[in-house]
Amino acid sequence: MRTPQRFALIGCGFIGQVHAANLAAHPGVTLAQVCDIDMSRAEAVAQQYAARAASVEQVLKSDAIDAVLIASATPTHAALLEQAVQAGKAVYCEKPIDLSLQRARDVVETISPLQVPVTVGFNRRFDHSHQQLKAQLKQGVIGQTELIQMVCRASELPPLSYLQASGGQMRDQAIHFFDLLRWLTEDEVNTVGALGAALAMPEIRDFDVDTSVLIMRLQQGALAQLDNTRRTAYGYDERISVMGSAGMLASESQAVRGATLYQGAGITQPGLYSDWFSRVKETYYTHLDAFVRHLGGEQVEGLPGLIDGLRAQAIADAAQLSLTRGEFVEVEWVKI
Amino acid sequence: MRTPQRFALIGCGFIGQVHAANLAAHPGVTLAQVCDIDMSRAEAVAQQYAARAASVEQVLKSDAIDAVLIASATPTHAALLEQAVQAGKAVYCEKPIDLSLQRARDVVETISPLQVPVTVGFNRRFDHSHQQLKAQLKQGVIGQTELIQMVCRASELPPLSYLQASGGQMRDQAIHFFDLLRWLTEDEVNTVGALGAALAMPEIRDFDVDTSVLIMRLQQGALAQLDNTRRTAYGYDERISVMGSAGMLASESQAVRGATLYQGAGITQPGLYSDWFSRVKETYYTHLDAFVRHLGGEQVEGLPGLIDGLRAQAIADAAQLSLTRGEFVEVEWVKI
Amino acid sequence: MRTPQRFALIGCGFIGQVHAANLAAHPGVTLAQVCDIDMSRAEAVAQQYAARAASVEQVLKSDAIDAVLIASATPTHAALLEQAVQAGKAVYCEKPIDLSLQRARDVVETISPLQVPVTVGFNRRFDHSHQQLKAQLKQGVIGQTELIQMVCRASELPPLSYLQASGGQMRDQAIHFFDLLRWLTEDEVNTVGALGAALAMPEIRDFDVDTSVLIMRLQQGALAQLDNTRRTAYGYDERISVMGSAGMLASESQAVRGATLYQGAGITQPGLYSDWFSRVKETYYTHLDAFVRHLGGEQVEGLPGLIDGLRAQAIADAAQLSLTRGEFVEVEWVKI
Amino acid sequence: MRTPQRFALIGCGFIGQVHAANLAAHPGVTLAQVCDIDMSRAEAVAQQYAARAASVEQVLKSDAIDAVLIASATPTHAALLEQAVQAGKAVYCEKPIDLSLQRARDVVETISPLQVPVTVGFNRRFDHSHQQLKAQLKQGVIGQTELIQMVCRASELPPLSYLQASGGQMRDQAIHFFDLLRWLTEDEVNTVGALGAALAMPEIRDFDVDTSVLIMRLQQGALAQLDNTRRTAYGYDERISVMGSAGMLASESQAVRGATLYQGAGITQPGLYSDWFSRVKETYYTHLDAFVRHLGGEQVEGLPGLIDGLRAQAIADAAQLSLTRGEFVEVEWVKI
Repeated sequence: MRTPQRFALIGCGFIGQVHAANLAAHPGVTLAQVCDIDMSRAEAVAQQYAARAASVEQVLKSDAIDAVLIASATPTHAALLEQAVQAGKAVYCEKPIDLSLQRARDVVETISPLQVPVTVGFNRRFDHSHQQLKAQLKQGVIGQTELIQMVCRASELPPLSYLQASGGQMRDQAIHFFDLLRWLTEDEVNTVGALGAALAMPEIRDFDVDTSVLIMRLQQGALAQLDNTRRTAYGYDERISVMGSAGMLASESQAVRGATLYQGAGITQPGLYSDWFSRVKETYYTHLDAFVRHLGGEQVEGLPGLIDGLRAQAIADAAQLSLTRGEFVEVEWVKI
Repeated sequence: MRTPQRFALIGCGFIGQVHAANLAAHPGVTLAQVCDIDMSRAEAVAQQYAARAASVEQVLKSDAIDAVLIASATPTHAALLEQAVQAGKAVYCEKPIDLSLQRARDVVETISPLQVPVTVGFNRRFDHSHQQLKAQLKQGVIGQTELIQMVCRASELPPLSYLQASGGQMRDQAIHFFDLLRWLTEDEVNTVGALGAALAMPEIRDFDVDTSVLIMRLQQGALAQLDNTRRTAYGYDERISVMGSAGMLASESQAVRGATLYQGAGITQPGLYSDWFSRVKETYYTHLDAFVRHLGGEQVEGLPGLIDGLRAQAIADAAQLSLTRGEFVEVEWVKI
Repeated sequence: MRTPQRFALIGCGFIGQVHAANLAAHPGVTLAQVCDIDMSRAEAVAQQYAARAASVEQVLKSDAIDAVLIASATPTHAALLEQAVQAGKAVYCEKPIDLSLQRARDVVETISPLQVPVTVGFNRRFDHSHQQLKAQLKQGVIGQTELIQMVCRASELPPLSYLQASGGQMRDQAIHFFDLLRWLTEDEVNTVGALGAALAMPEIRDFDVDTSVLIMRLQQGALAQLDNTRRTAYGYDERISVMGSAGMLASESQAVRGATLYQGAGITQPGLYSDWFSRVKETYYTHLDAFVRHLGGEQVEGLPGLIDGLRAQAIADAAQLSLTRGEFVEVEWVKI
Repeated sequence: MRTPQRFALIGCGFIGQVHAANLAAHPGVTLAQVCDIDMSRAEAVAQQYAARAASVEQVLKSDAIDAVLIASATPTHAALLEQAVQAGKAVYCEKPIDLSLQRARDVVETISPLQVPVTVGFNRRFDHSHQQLKAQLKQGVIGQTELIQMVCRASELPPLSYLQASGGQMRDQAIHFFDLLRWLTEDEVNTVGALGAALAMPEIRDFDVDTSVLIMRLQQGALAQLDNTRRTAYGYDERISVMGSAGMLASESQAVRGATLYQGAGITQPGLYSDWFSRVKETYYTHLDAFVRHLGGEQVEGLPGLIDGLRAQAIADAAQLSLTRGEFVEVEWVKI
């Protein structure tokens, strides 16, 4: 058995605590140090998992830390990522690298030559159904990819404050699907057209949308669709289908398990997961596991890296521009 | 194109009229004559389909009739079948041949040597899904048959008068599934055990049951189950599954087509067919069509004949005995 | 019972013959006369249904004709529609009125004042599942409509000659869904953006696409998506879902009935309908029936009329323009 | 937060180790001591969870143990249960209490007066779907219960040695469903009829069956069915449906999550769970949790107790007798 990777966790908010539990549970990891801008929160989490609370400076200087998981507030990602890599720590960085694509590019340019292992938090790649879809796609089961359809519908409206800091639906929510699209097709998005509206939360209409529909053309010729909503009245709905010249593969909406009622003229089964986290929860662990195996020298496919971070963001920026300008926009991925 | 078969229909009740419409619509059939004990009803049906009302005697003597479809009341089946065959007419006879197995045997013994084409009304064999199941079973897709599960649940209670004349749930309702079981497995039922109760209609408890569960052992070793109800509160439920050594084939409950509602914590789709007739309606036509093709000299598989009629009835009689006596009963099919 | 409507059928191609069978089968209709540019074909169809072959001139002059069903070649629709209405005949006109929206507008302008009953062949409105979706939508079951998703995927490539005369995927195939969108939402499309490609049939790339994705913004704020393909490798796939503020209604892909195989690590059920006609066949009859009831004085909802024909076409024209120009296009429906 | 319950685990075989992991993971439990007839195995498990290896005698005498989980070989259950209760330890005892119903009764008679909390290992009650079914049943959603259908099909044949010591399919496998039937209906089984065969493993035919079908009549009038197999070729299949006077509730076969392939004339989705443990795994934890909450003073519904253990066994004995004798058998539950 390999020596466990000694991790420090930076950021103990909701997602930080999810990561803390996963780091503590993973047999190949030691959760050694925990940071948070709120030191008492860092202490509490550290204590729960028998780790030590520390400052970021301590973490980056420590010889007892191999890797850093950055789950702090978005505006801090870029600097922390840069410092951690420069300190020689492997990094699992929550997306996005930065809300500014230019800033993200600069960081990546700086740290890429250092060849330190980095993964960016596109955990949805590790969804079990999506993985199966990808595996069959890669085997050529459905021939040449022609048409991709993606649905990303969150069930509950986030608070206004969250939306104000999120960078917008494209950069905050849709970005996961821009990444999934690139990962599944192993192709790049050339053109994007988007229409959006603030239907569920009209008060955000001056700076964001909560409902949007997008169409995209990929480099190798396939076409793609995506719709996003911030609120459904029927649970969390995430689906992907890929149509090819020889069939269709679908990773369909997932309903919770439960009893079905046959009554009168209807059949009622349990609905979709009530919230996004119930659906994607396990992917945080499987992503972490893939990264840890990578650190251990294993050949791991599909681990999202720095370039993936930049390119998904480039699509999000183009989509945002399309929403704003009301025209199709070319994605500047070739510059990355 | 072949000369159409000239049919006479005997009996214009509900099922008789279903047959009338099918006979009129079939391109290989001429509906020439129509009989009913109520002459005015015969006239009305005859007029609707440009046929002639006639007496049974006229039909049997007529040179212009090739085949007879017997859809009159059950107690008349045996004599009509006998007379029609003796008159050289091909016969499509609604099940059962007679409520008395002994009487049915006698008729079959008399007419079998005459080698006139006869089919008995086990139309459910012609259900599209059951046919597909049978085809795959025969190809050996699931290996050796081990376990059969059948569900036969009618949605609406028939009137008391119907039940009083029906011969009981085993002979009236379950008999279709005894036939399906024999047809699917190409095997015979040796032993049957049944438990029943009058749960939906307690007033029939002295002479019949409306809910029953059965288990059976087949000659070649497979085991089977069947449940029957006279009333569900969720539509007509007919299903068959066959488990073999290499997999399971299922002809599942059929829901009507329609819109699905995703709302709150549930997903509601349209329910099962509201009544048995909506589900099995098409099988009357496909059964007729198979018989007409047989009359035209085509090799037709699975057309239920006289022996099928007797053997399904022998199982029904054994099941009835099991219900009454509270013990397992051996089926006397070997005598047939 | 009402006096049957005496119909003349103009055009005996594939769809014409579908209409002939429906006209003959409908109890409220007499199929009296049949026209075709190929007189021998007209005679054959007339004979099959005990009608009379006639020229268009004879039909339009005949006092024995109440209504005309136009199922001839697209370029003849406009003139025939105009003449038939001017002759006082009610008209069921296959879509489109004309491939030129301007020409279609002119005809409608001419004949609208005459107040003769006309329906345009948007038969998919009469799909049983779509009807159920619409009924629940209208009852407000899912609140305010926010997001519509439509899929229109034909299974088999039409011949090149068909595609050359079709007016393009937008005007030939997608137009049905532009109509469905207007009918379901009772709203108008303002903006459309489309991307397309000739992936299945590269030889059409200079004048048409076979795969396309569209996004639309509706007048009252909802957003919509549509994808179209001319060829799948998994059957005919038509689906619509409408998400509202209180839930989602879906008229989902329809699979044929049949046996399901459980084997190893998979469950295989029968696939989607093999071709579009198997799925939509019944809607030709239900549309005709609705029109006949309308002619009989009944209040019929959702019968597609002349304005519906124009407006769906206006969306198709805008979508075509978007495909060609690579920009979002405003639909000129306000001019209609 | 309550003081954790200090548990000793007796037996470290496959299921014992499942319990060990659950005991270690449960926040309300301390796994303090571990026993096994193989002391080195006890040591290994103890070390893994920071517990202490101990002999049964030490456990029973220890003041530091509140509760005992008995997961040793079946023949040891009765004596250990008796001793543990007499030592004042709460007990979670794997089923069955003893293969001999008489011996089990004697134990229960001895220990019942001591009023020590005991639960018997009918963990399937804690399946999430079955729980939902039960909850709706109890609310009266489907009216009066009339017909229960249960399927219990394991996917892989156990080794011959296991089957020889198992007590037979009724006592080893079906017993879980006898318990589920009693729990769901809150009723007792009066009569049972069973047919069985050794189809998958003919070499056991002299002492056991691997495929069986059962019918039962319940005290309050409902009828029930159950089929059992030791080997399918399509995964682990566990299902329950309850039909009542006002509808049907079903806890259906569970398929694993994954991508669906639409291709040609078929749609293939992932199959059922490959093995029983994948499906029921979580119920070991939820059962333990319910027991721990009960120990903590919480009102917990449906915890299977000693009488439940005896009564399920009485049905299994009756079913075994029915198999052997070929007749219906009355269950002697009234004596319990």
